[in-house]
Amino acid sequence: MERTILFFLITHHWGTGSSFTYHCGFRYNPPMKSYRKELWFQTPHRRAFINITPEVELALNESGVQEGLALVNAMHITSSVFINDDESGLHQDYEKWLEKLAPHEPVAAYRHNLSGEDNGDAHLKRQVMGREVVVAVTQGRLDFGPWEQIFYGEFDGRRKKRVLVKIIGE
Amino acid sequence: MERTILFFLITHHWGTGSSFTYHCGFRYNPPMKSYRKELWFQTPHRRAFINITPEVELALNESGVQEGLALVNAMHITSSVFINDDESGLHQDYEKWLEKLAPHEPVAAYRHNLSGEDNGDAHLKRQVMGREVVVAVTQGRLDFGPWEQIFYGEFDGRRKKRVLVKIIGE
Amino acid sequence: MERTILFFLITHHWGTGSSFTYHCGFRYNPPMKSYRKELWFQTPHRRAFINITPEVELALNESGVQEGLALVNAMHITSSVFINDDESGLHQDYEKWLEKLAPHEPVAAYRHNLSGEDNGDAHLKRQVMGREVVVAVTQGRLDFGPWEQIFYGEFDGRRKKRVLVKIIGE
Repeated sequence: MERTILFFLITHHWGTGSSFTYHCGFRYNPPMKSYRKELWFQTPHRRAFINITPEVELALNESGVQEGLALVNAMHITSSVFINDDESGLHQDYEKWLEKLAPHEPVAAYRHNLSGEDNGDAHLKRQVMGREVVVAVTQGRLDFGPWEQIFYGEFDGRRKKRVLVKIIGE
Repeated sequence: MERTILFFLITHHWGTGSSFTYHCGFRYNPPMKSYRKELWFQTPHRRAFINITPEVELALNESGVQEGLALVNAMHITSSVFINDDESGLHQDYEKWLEKLAPHEPVAAYRHNLSGEDNGDAHLKRQVMGREVVVAVTQGRLDFGPWEQIFYGEFDGRRKKRVLVKIIGE
Repeated sequence: MERTILFFLITHHWGTGSSFTYHCGFRYNPPMKSYRKELWFQTPHRRAFINITPEVELALNESGVQEGLALVNAMHITSSVFINDDESGLHQDYEKWLEKLAPHEPVAAYRHNLSGEDNGDAHLKRQVMGREVVVAVTQGRLDFGPWEQIFYGEFDGRRKKRVLVKIIGE
C-alpha cells in the first residue's frame, strides 16, 4: 500500500566550471480516501427484501478504495440493511417470523400509530434486522464469506427511500 | 481534502557570477485523524431512551473530522445505542415489546440472575436493540436520513454508565 | 502519531570558491494501516458461544494499529459475532431465549429447509445476535467498558467456519 515518489532536483551551475546536483527520492504513502453514494428504492409493496450487493460492489469500484471499510446503512428508520442468504424460502421465513414478533395489525396496538401512522411495526422489525452493515474491503473487493450477500429490507415501502454507502480507506 | 504545501529551496551561488535556484512544490495529503469521547449517564429508572444526537454532533465538531466514520457504542452490556425516531409513542412501543420478548420478571427465570443479579432480561433486550451504530461523516456532519436520531437505550440503569464515541477520518 | 522526516539536500558548488547548501526538514504523517486475519472454528455441537477476545487482541497487536477501528464479523450467515458478558448462566439464557424466538424444530416449519437444509432457525437466530461488532482501538488496545467481551455465536456448527478481523487505523 505504499507508493514511491521520486523528486529530482537538478541544478545546473554556470560558472568557471559546470556541475549538476540532483536529489532526492523518498517514500510517500497515500492518504485516506472516502467515497459516498446513495442508492434509491421504491418498492411496490409494503415489505420487500432486495439484494443490493451488485450496487455496493459498483460503488466500491467507483471509490478506488483497496483496503478499508464499507458502511452500508438504511437512511430511513423503517427499513434495514443486513447480510444473509439470497434464498427466497429464507426470505419468506423472515417475513413470517418478523410478522409474528411484531405484527402489523392491529395497527392500534402501537402508540406510535396514534400520530396517524400505520408503521409502528416497521420500526420494531427494523431493530431485529438491523440498520447497517460494515464490510471489510480487501484488495479492492468486499471481503465476504461464501454466502454473504447484502440486502435492503423494506418494512414500510411504496415510497422513495434511500440507502447510504460510505467507503473509507486507501 | 488535499492540501498543497510548497517547498522552496533557494540556493544562492557565489562565484564568478551569482545565481539562484529555487525548487519545488508538491501535493501533501492530510493524515487520518482520530477522536475519542465518553458520554456519561445515570438514569433515575431501570429503563430509559435518551436522544444523544446533540452530544455526538458536538463530539464530531470537536474532532475536526470532515470525512470518515463515527462509532457510537454502549460500553456496558445491559444498554444499547441505536438509531430510530424521536417519538415518545414509539419509545413506549419499544418498552412494551422488549418486555414481552424478554420480561424482567420472574427474575428467577434467568440463570444469569443466580449470580445475585436481577438484570438477565437487560442482557437480552440489549441484543435486540444493538450495542453500537456506525454513522458516516460527510462534510463534517453526521450523514443522516430525514428522521435518524441516535439513542442511548438503558435497560439496567440507576447507576453511572458510559457511551463511547470514536471518530476516525480526515 | 506524527513522525518527522528530515531531508537534507547538500549541494557542493565548484567554482572560483566552494560552497555548500543543505536543506530542508518537514513533518510527515503516517498513512492509514490495514490488517486482516481470519479466525477458524469447528464446534463439536450445533450451537456454541466462544469468547474470542484474546484472538482479536492478538490480531490487534500484530496489526500495529494504535488508533482506529476493528471490525470483527462472522463470514457465515448462520453464526454471529457479538459483545456481551462472559458468564455461563447468561449463555444458557441466550440459548433458551433464542430457541424460543426461533425454534430449531419442527425443521419443516422453515421454507428454507425445503432446500434440504435444517438450519432455517440458525439464519433467524443470527439476526437477533448480529453479524458483526465494530470496536474502537485506542492507544493500541480494544477500547472496552468493564465487562465487554467478544463472542463467536455458532448456531449451525460441526463444520469449519470463519470469523474475519479487519483493523484499520494508524
